[in-house]
Amino acid sequence: MLVVMQEGAAEAQIQAVIDRMVAMGFNVHRSTGVVHTVLGGVGPMDEFDPAAFEVMEGVKECHRIMSPYKLASRSFRPGGTIIKVGGVEIGGPKVVVMAGPCSVESEQQIARSAEQCAAAGASFIRGGAFKPRSSPYAFQGLGEEGLKLMRRAADQHGLLVISEVMDHTQIPMMLGYCDVLQVGARNMQNFNLLKELGKIRKPVLLKRGISATIEELLLSAEYVMAGGNYEVILCERGIRTFETYTRNTMDISAIPVVKKLSHLPMVADPSHGTGRRDKVIPMARASVAAGADGLLVEVHPNPNEALSDGPQSLYPDQFNELMAQLKIIAPAVGRTL
Amino acid sequence: MLVVMQEGAAEAQIQAVIDRMVAMGFNVHRSTGVVHTVLGGVGPMDEFDPAAFEVMEGVKECHRIMSPYKLASRSFRPGGTIIKVGGVEIGGPKVVVMAGPCSVESEQQIARSAEQCAAAGASFIRGGAFKPRSSPYAFQGLGEEGLKLMRRAADQHGLLVISEVMDHTQIPMMLGYCDVLQVGARNMQNFNLLKELGKIRKPVLLKRGISATIEELLLSAEYVMAGGNYEVILCERGIRTFETYTRNTMDISAIPVVKKLSHLPMVADPSHGTGRRDKVIPMARASVAAGADGLLVEVHPNPNEALSDGPQSLYPDQFNELMAQLKIIAPAVGRTL
Amino acid sequence: MLVVMQEGAAEAQIQAVIDRMVAMGFNVHRSTGVVHTVLGGVGPMDEFDPAAFEVMEGVKECHRIMSPYKLASRSFRPGGTIIKVGGVEIGGPKVVVMAGPCSVESEQQIARSAEQCAAAGASFIRGGAFKPRSSPYAFQGLGEEGLKLMRRAADQHGLLVISEVMDHTQIPMMLGYCDVLQVGARNMQNFNLLKELGKIRKPVLLKRGISATIEELLLSAEYVMAGGNYEVILCERGIRTFETYTRNTMDISAIPVVKKLSHLPMVADPSHGTGRRDKVIPMARASVAAGADGLLVEVHPNPNEALSDGPQSLYPDQFNELMAQLKIIAPAVGRTL
Amino acid sequence: MLVVMQEGAAEAQIQAVIDRMVAMGFNVHRSTGVVHTVLGGVGPMDEFDPAAFEVMEGVKECHRIMSPYKLASRSFRPGGTIIKVGGVEIGGPKVVVMAGPCSVESEQQIARSAEQCAAAGASFIRGGAFKPRSSPYAFQGLGEEGLKLMRRAADQHGLLVISEVMDHTQIPMMLGYCDVLQVGARNMQNFNLLKELGKIRKPVLLKRGISATIEELLLSAEYVMAGGNYEVILCERGIRTFETYTRNTMDISAIPVVKKLSHLPMVADPSHGTGRRDKVIPMARASVAAGADGLLVEVHPNPNEALSDGPQSLYPDQFNELMAQLKIIAPAVGRTL
Repeated sequence: MLVVMQEGAAEAQIQAVIDRMVAMGFNVHRSTGVVHTVLGGVGPMDEFDPAAFEVMEGVKECHRIMSPYKLASRSFRPGGTIIKVGGVEIGGPKVVVMAGPCSVESEQQIARSAEQCAAAGASFIRGGAFKPRSSPYAFQGLGEEGLKLMRRAADQHGLLVISEVMDHTQIPMMLGYCDVLQVGARNMQNFNLLKELGKIRKPVLLKRGISATIEELLLSAEYVMAGGNYEVILCERGIRTFETYTRNTMDISAIPVVKKLSHLPMVADPSHGTGRRDKVIPMARASVAAGADGLLVEVHPNPNEALSDGPQSLYPDQFNELMAQLKIIAPAVGRTL
Repeated sequence: MLVVMQEGAAEAQIQAVIDRMVAMGFNVHRSTGVVHTVLGGVGPMDEFDPAAFEVMEGVKECHRIMSPYKLASRSFRPGGTIIKVGGVEIGGPKVVVMAGPCSVESEQQIARSAEQCAAAGASFIRGGAFKPRSSPYAFQGLGEEGLKLMRRAADQHGLLVISEVMDHTQIPMMLGYCDVLQVGARNMQNFNLLKELGKIRKPVLLKRGISATIEELLLSAEYVMAGGNYEVILCERGIRTFETYTRNTMDISAIPVVKKLSHLPMVADPSHGTGRRDKVIPMARASVAAGADGLLVEVHPNPNEALSDGPQSLYPDQFNELMAQLKIIAPAVGRTL
Repeated sequence: MLVVMQEGAAEAQIQAVIDRMVAMGFNVHRSTGVVHTVLGGVGPMDEFDPAAFEVMEGVKECHRIMSPYKLASRSFRPGGTIIKVGGVEIGGPKVVVMAGPCSVESEQQIARSAEQCAAAGASFIRGGAFKPRSSPYAFQGLGEEGLKLMRRAADQHGLLVISEVMDHTQIPMMLGYCDVLQVGARNMQNFNLLKELGKIRKPVLLKRGISATIEELLLSAEYVMAGGNYEVILCERGIRTFETYTRNTMDISAIPVVKKLSHLPMVADPSHGTGRRDKVIPMARASVAAGADGLLVEVHPNPNEALSDGPQSLYPDQFNELMAQLKIIAPAVGRTL
Repeated sequence: MLVVMQEGAAEAQIQAVIDRMVAMGFNVHRSTGVVHTVLGGVGPMDEFDPAAFEVMEGVKECHRIMSPYKLASRSFRPGGTIIKVGGVEIGGPKVVVMAGPCSVESEQQIARSAEQCAAAGASFIRGGAFKPRSSPYAFQGLGEEGLKLMRRAADQHGLLVISEVMDHTQIPMMLGYCDVLQVGARNMQNFNLLKELGKIRKPVLLKRGISATIEELLLSAEYVMAGGNYEVILCERGIRTFETYTRNTMDISAIPVVKKLSHLPMVADPSHGTGRRDKVIPMARASVAAGADGLLVEVHPNPNEALSDGPQSLYPDQFNELMAQLKIIAPAVGRTL
């Protein structure tokens, strides 16, 4: 860590900072510049709040030098992580597509979805079983029954299953039905949930919160990994900005940034990233062109009848068309679909 | 609700929208303007996603007319809500101050805090018992033991107790120690937690999420109120913006905005809103000057030794000075301290 | 326009709004709903500030119905605009690439750049002649001399020339050298400049400001078009968000959004959009995959020696590689390169 | 400056960075840590782009140590700057109020405004003479004639005059009428304008751009000061965030932050900061409570008839009431009004 003192900082102020660094276990190296004195500290993991130094008298700024995440860092596995689940590899040369409705609504709906997704070339079916909504009167999901229906439909069509876990108490039950557990954007910093997911032995797909920085996303991945579960898939799904035409602004650049900073696979969710069906397809193409390892896409047999997220769900025909376009784009980034 | 059709929308497109509105239970009124056809719908509560119409062919835009929140709306109680707890009124003429350390750390620390806060004129002591941290090795809070210590210290000094509930499973235990339960910014849209808090009969202080709009804050309040608990206190604590000098940007204007839109009391947390001790005092003054019903302030007997949030905790002397300044300001807005 | 009155608005308040609408030239249609009274106004162009109504007593909200831009709207030319300059069509089936250094630095540098850009398949050379910098001591550009050098280099390699105009006084001089005049992000709302550009008969490339909404970008285009110059090319180059890893967040979704709202061509500038060379290539691919009509890319014969924007300039080899990748991607969106 | 190398950076990569630092004139100090090698550079002014190092192989991050502004820094004049104009001191113990209409509209309007502002206790009258608007048909201001009218009205009531300069060509003419020249938010980075304002000998009030960081605001002040004009007044007027209820989010915390970082006076403009009359008063109070040296407030004899910005202009009675409230608040921060 580095503490830069203000111009003209008093010797007593500098000494107070040194004393504090020493008390925290740092070895301190002092460089006296023409204008600023800089104190370098080498020591324990950089788990401290730079603000603790920045509020001290005479301090100009304080920087952590070491990334606050280690296991999630690219340097931990320079070659990149490939997560194998069923016969599918996430992070390998093939772009993995996870598709399906926002919510599991009925046996027929999920069966039809699975059939269509498999035919189009998806590897996973996605679908929510728990839907806490802003209105207590709105459709809340089918719960465990929905997961049963989705598992059965997936098995019939050779698909894997991904679904969102809302709460750490649901984990054991969900493990019985799902191949990958998804953490939603609102739960990205639910540390109790992340901690429990660190103990399981199935992959976790972690969505970026709408106001989370890339560093915070990686810190949340670190939390899961620190528990021993290294199979974390990251997911960009849009951040909140001043632009109101789209529900969120999908940060496509986060894909190459994360791929550089971390060894973990990074997928994109253009459905939540845009909130509008007609923008899902271009943003799905852009995600693959930018290097995403996979996509999470909402497709519904009949979007107009969907009980949730209909406006952002693709029609099956649109999904087929998208898959055909992605087959053209993937080779440009050395991938297949 | 209102649907505005695009210039030159085809009759079949207009009819498709009308059909959908009717299917959703709206009575439809059609106005054919020179340029745009506008369809007005009167009907069920405005609980629908405008995007469902905006993705239809020929539609330019769709507006909800009715606020998505009702119970939290100013029109529900035009005179404003005063929440009475112990002998204290929140939302009345007196600005209520809730002060104390970020975390309860020890018997001595919380006892000393209670003494200092009471002496300075605070009505509540605040302090966290559960501290899920980004590092699993950092101080995680004293748990129920911390609440016991805080309750005892509060009682000795005639203070009320507010503390943060992290999870719906903690509610029953916490009710034994706290006068007000606080919901943190990260949990503002934890609907399972809000639902359970709707069933209790103690006030809830709900903090605005760092990327939550004012409307979303009021919707979360509505969620608690819909369960029957009308005693909700709102709290501004900073939003995430592009500015990096401060940890968050405290949206002081949210105070008068919420006071106009809602009848609920609105307090401010300048400690989390700024993250730096030297900015807490000016922002606390600004909050009261803007009309806040109260303040939530971190004060620690010895901030440099604090196990969490030390950089933003006031020294007891600073807190005394702040209270003196607030006594001068409060009359400018027709309040007392 | 539509004014929605608050629940329980008094008759006198409603009448005051009606009077004001009438005074502004609107025909008023009143609908009395169960909860809200809605006043619809048909009349002059929707050039008014909705806030003028929203501050009136009893008003809940006010919406403009008509887009504040007309000439820039897709409905003005549903088939889309193709801008022809030299033998190049912008907005047609071919993705147009404009490449070159940030600044024109010397005869040799711009000659070498032109050679490399032409060889790689670019249609335009770009390069700045005026570089107002935050430091008065930094390189300020070669001025008109730079334009001369660039024109000559372009002509030798069959390239067109685009360069940024900083000030309306520079227009006549620049028209002598450039095929397209570029308006930078900081000048997007320099209305004096836009007004003068409305009078010329060469295309204008208008960059989105870093905090401009898509609507504001279209309004600025409208400003140029209102003067009679319909040849406006829009350009996404990144917006300011809370994310700090990238200099700006490139809003790739703005590409399909603008293409839907407007008939004007839309290009992307991944160099300024990311600020880092290693992110330029993935974002360039993503832009084309999302439907951009062209790209504006910084390439420098020797980026490490560049007098400005070196870190975001591609090496010539990288540019060649990018062009090869784009050739694969373009057919996925029915384009060629 | 400091360059932190990545974990495991190769010796050749480290050497390449050192070579570049040396080439740029830095003396380099190398510290080899357990994990990271850190290169410290002491040398010329820190006017370089850290991205130039961050794109080099093996580099993790690069920090400037010295503030990019010097003259605007608090350390340049630790005691703070007081700007004297007429008999008024800006930055001294008295909070200075600048009030008046958005635009000068007529002799009668500005005369009436001056009378009301003077009676309420303002020191300055403000009013725009040039109003470039998004619509070419809207009121564009009275130009020099407006300035004449304002000067005359000001003189009759013992007021000083502040008005906005849009373009460097207007400076000489405006100096004949104004005591302070104002730079609007959109021109905060119009470096040509700032450069010319560095040459004049009257104070400049510089508004923060809606997407400008505090550092960028201080850099723009530096630009003026570098030209020799040290009389710069800074002004917070709202930043663009995701919140849409208010037109901008007024960053009240910027007031104490700027007062700490810089010696320059800092005022606040709650009119543009909120865009709605009913929010102007609480935000004006908050600004003074947070330590602002002055206020810029829009007041109009008849806001409903205002040709621009009516919705955010105070009624004269509201302004009187505000001044009375500010008189109560000012002593809390050791000021008078």
